[in-house]
Amino acid sequence: MNANLLPNSGNVDGSDSRRNMGSWISGCCGNPKTQLIRLWEFGSSDRIRFIFPAKMGLALTLLSFFIFLKEPFQDLSSHSVWAILTVVVVFEMTIGSTLRKGFNRFLGTVLAAGLALAVAQISILTGDYEEVIIIGAIFTVGFLTNFLKLYPTMRPYEYGFRVFLITFCFIVVSGYKTGRFFQTAINRSILICIGAIVALAVNVFIYPIWAGEDLHALIVNNFDNVAASIEGCVDAYLACIEYKRIPSDILTYEPSDDPLYNGYRSAVESMTQEKELLGFAIWEPPHGRYKIVKYPWKSFIKVSGALRHCAFAVMALHGCILSEIQAPPKSRLIFRSELQNIGIESAKVLRAIGDRIEKMKQLGVGDILSSVNKAAEELQDKIDRRSYIFVNSDKWEIGGRQQDGEDGGSSRRGRGGGNEGDSDFNNNHFAIKSQSEAVLDLRYVEFEIHSGESSESMSPGFVESKETSNETTKPTYHMHTAINAQSRIYESASELSLSTFASLLIEFVARLSNLVDCFEELCKIAQFQEP
Amino acid sequence: MNANLLPNSGNVDGSDSRRNMGSWISGCCGNPKTQLIRLWEFGSSDRIRFIFPAKMGLALTLLSFFIFLKEPFQDLSSHSVWAILTVVVVFEMTIGSTLRKGFNRFLGTVLAAGLALAVAQISILTGDYEEVIIIGAIFTVGFLTNFLKLYPTMRPYEYGFRVFLITFCFIVVSGYKTGRFFQTAINRSILICIGAIVALAVNVFIYPIWAGEDLHALIVNNFDNVAASIEGCVDAYLACIEYKRIPSDILTYEPSDDPLYNGYRSAVESMTQEKELLGFAIWEPPHGRYKIVKYPWKSFIKVSGALRHCAFAVMALHGCILSEIQAPPKSRLIFRSELQNIGIESAKVLRAIGDRIEKMKQLGVGDILSSVNKAAEELQDKIDRRSYIFVNSDKWEIGGRQQDGEDGGSSRRGRGGGNEGDSDFNNNHFAIKSQSEAVLDLRYVEFEIHSGESSESMSPGFVESKETSNETTKPTYHMHTAINAQSRIYESASELSLSTFASLLIEFVARLSNLVDCFEELCKIAQFQEP
Repeated sequence: MNANLLPNSGNVDGSDSRRNMGSWISGCCGNPKTQLIRLWEFGSSDRIRFIFPAKMGLALTLLSFFIFLKEPFQDLSSHSVWAILTVVVVFEMTIGSTLRKGFNRFLGTVLAAGLALAVAQISILTGDYEEVIIIGAIFTVGFLTNFLKLYPTMRPYEYGFRVFLITFCFIVVSGYKTGRFFQTAINRSILICIGAIVALAVNVFIYPIWAGEDLHALIVNNFDNVAASIEGCVDAYLACIEYKRIPSDILTYEPSDDPLYNGYRSAVESMTQEKELLGFAIWEPPHGRYKIVKYPWKSFIKVSGALRHCAFAVMALHGCILSEIQAPPKSRLIFRSELQNIGIESAKVLRAIGDRIEKMKQLGVGDILSSVNKAAEELQDKIDRRSYIFVNSDKWEIGGRQQDGEDGGSSRRGRGGGNEGDSDFNNNHFAIKSQSEAVLDLRYVEFEIHSGESSESMSPGFVESKETSNETTKPTYHMHTAINAQSRIYESASELSLSTFASLLIEFVARLSNLVDCFEELCKIAQFQEP
Repeated sequence: MNANLLPNSGNVDGSDSRRNMGSWISGCCGNPKTQLIRLWEFGSSDRIRFIFPAKMGLALTLLSFFIFLKEPFQDLSSHSVWAILTVVVVFEMTIGSTLRKGFNRFLGTVLAAGLALAVAQISILTGDYEEVIIIGAIFTVGFLTNFLKLYPTMRPYEYGFRVFLITFCFIVVSGYKTGRFFQTAINRSILICIGAIVALAVNVFIYPIWAGEDLHALIVNNFDNVAASIEGCVDAYLACIEYKRIPSDILTYEPSDDPLYNGYRSAVESMTQEKELLGFAIWEPPHGRYKIVKYPWKSFIKVSGALRHCAFAVMALHGCILSEIQAPPKSRLIFRSELQNIGIESAKVLRAIGDRIEKMKQLGVGDILSSVNKAAEELQDKIDRRSYIFVNSDKWEIGGRQQDGEDGGSSRRGRGGGNEGDSDFNNNHFAIKSQSEAVLDLRYVEFEIHSGESSESMSPGFVESKETSNETTKPTYHMHTAINAQSRIYESASELSLSTFASLLIEFVARLSNLVDCFEELCKIAQFQEP
């Protein structure tokens, strides 16, 4: 079942509500047939959407038979509306939330009834001051209830406090009108109990919907999302995909269509929903595959939290793709196989853990991280051997000042040229910059990419600055125009940005080990099967 | 006023609720005096906590006078409990949420009353089938209401649907019992209107609490938090603060005591609360400083989203501090002033924008970003001049294979040694690794930090690997033990990690410009004052 179905899941931006309702209503009036088809499609895409309302309708129908009761149940029958109202108020989609609300309602009602009866007794005993006592009691109880529910640890019981206040006022007021405080309290309690029992019975015995199962499915789904996102990020980086214009939704962290972005965002955003489902799931008795009393849902949340920590690393990787400063495609190709390997292996690890969580099985023998760690080491090793790609020694202070530029330049060139495998990867990489608008406001110069030294077709600005920096170094640096200085700066930044991507990818791999630890802890606590 | 006060703000982990309530109750019974003092302190820390309950108590008291009405209002008086219940249900802390709930309740009640009267008429007309019609209607209405409220655009009206169903059931059932459908519907509607009007009047005219103001304060507060976090991150990085053991709360993205972490986390986490407050604020009429009809709260949210995008960059920076792979302290010192400058200037920009949002003023003339951009350029320029710090050419393929190791080594040493300013920053940086547990499971070797080449006191493992790599290069690399290979790999990774931190900091600066754009848009739409 899709966890997003929960009415309280809060995925909808409340700010759109007025507009949406307006457009929905106008759409409804405009073409009822289209709307009916749309509603039918909405319902049939997940049968829960038909089952839940039908269950509620059934519970209401069962209780409405009460109103036809004759003597000797006339008294119950005349208050039967309370049982129906209880169902409307308490009946929630999942069993956990129904139980929690039912508990709140029960406790609130019982305590309020007790207090109301005490107040009634006192008011009757005082005689002339009856009205004063009643009004004073209503103010005091209203004040205290609303004060206490602000207390942080009391917040989950907000509903209970509300019920308490409603019941208290109702009993005191109707008792005063009819003079039958005790009768009112008893009748109301019995009918609320009947309503609660019917609601619970229908909810549990007819096609039960468990919050725990939703939570489980949500977490498993997040693993797939993050796996797709990390794989997609690495692929996009290697394919040198650039955002011509970054969607403003991404820049303000709003929902967007971008699949890479949605992958990690769903894992980050599901936190609120997980917390909510956890609050319900802990109320649910052992059932189905979840046979342990006090099932360790908190450990599931912890694994999901560790996944979120990984998702933030994916977010940082995506930041490299969004960034204005982009590494030259040629340099990325050098690390192609290593980067891709990490992407594939990480996604495998995530999917494997997600799959084990779904099947509630432990990991097999052998280290699940061995392949991905190996891939990370290979990348790091290659970085170690080729880190000259990241740096541009033209402007090195240690080189430029001590020996003349020609010497430094030629020694590098000699080394680079001699290595056949890397003949096209010398230090002359050129910056490629995205057209994104999320940039430092610099008027940069664009360069062409080229491989051979013979076919150098650079922009004049670039040639100039290169020549100058080879001839003289720092002393004349400040004489360059601002544009040239900035283009130089961003050129070398682009060379380092590949190393940033690589470091962040290695950091992502490091975070996987924490995830595996959390998962193994979960295996023990939740008694997952041996593989 | 502290926005966290809102009862629905959902900041409390529902999973703790059972335990918390237990401990609170037991604490309450154990030492009532301590608990009372604690409650008093809780209330007096923010006077809203006393004012809100008092307002609610007042509204209840005003309505409870209804029950003492004599003829000719006997009929109203006997149903007066409905007015009181409406107050309990509709009265929310902020004006926006009260208005929204009141609207839901009004619409739900009116539509339900209309439908119930129609059903009643039909059931009376059919005579013998009255019961069948009533039961059928209850099931159908129960089904449809609960089905429609699952529809995504309908979710904000969940409460309205519930009220609709309650009212419908109530009128149909009580009407059947008393035979006075019409009278029931009219009486109930009048009393609900009275209750709603009293609730609204008390809420608006006595110490009004506006959701919009809370939203405003929340966003301004986030700017301060992120500013403190970015400054703290840079300082912590330069002070080489390491986590001996990373709090598991951070690894699973749970609340923690860490101030750096809390700074950006609060900005990320406030999203849910902002959305909720936005949903209320759009219902509020112009008031106080917010004089525009349909105040552009959405633009505030957009600025906050852009700030969140920056907060994610701070999160990535914090990730560098948490990472196992740490740059040598000595290298960090080289970039000290540039890094610190960016930290200070970025925080200044954030605080300036936060301050302007608070005072609802535009930015002054001149580019607010000029200092921070300049600082970023200086950093990039220095990176450009000193990028040799990030790389370790010992293992460069282009060097090692073509010429013997001695030659390559000495030429580097010659260059490094000749530059007095950098004499202690040659390529021999040693890896410092945190003891964090969020690491690749590598048995790494620890090295001491030292500056002069004369006092080299390395671990044997390191000396061995260094000598070997100087004598022979790649061909013998694979003969090293795994430990040596890995320690080498992490040594060079540590050198690049400084460049990662620097790139991420520059990326943070780039994201500030998007924030400024969003802020300027807000200035126009919300008609902020000229400076």
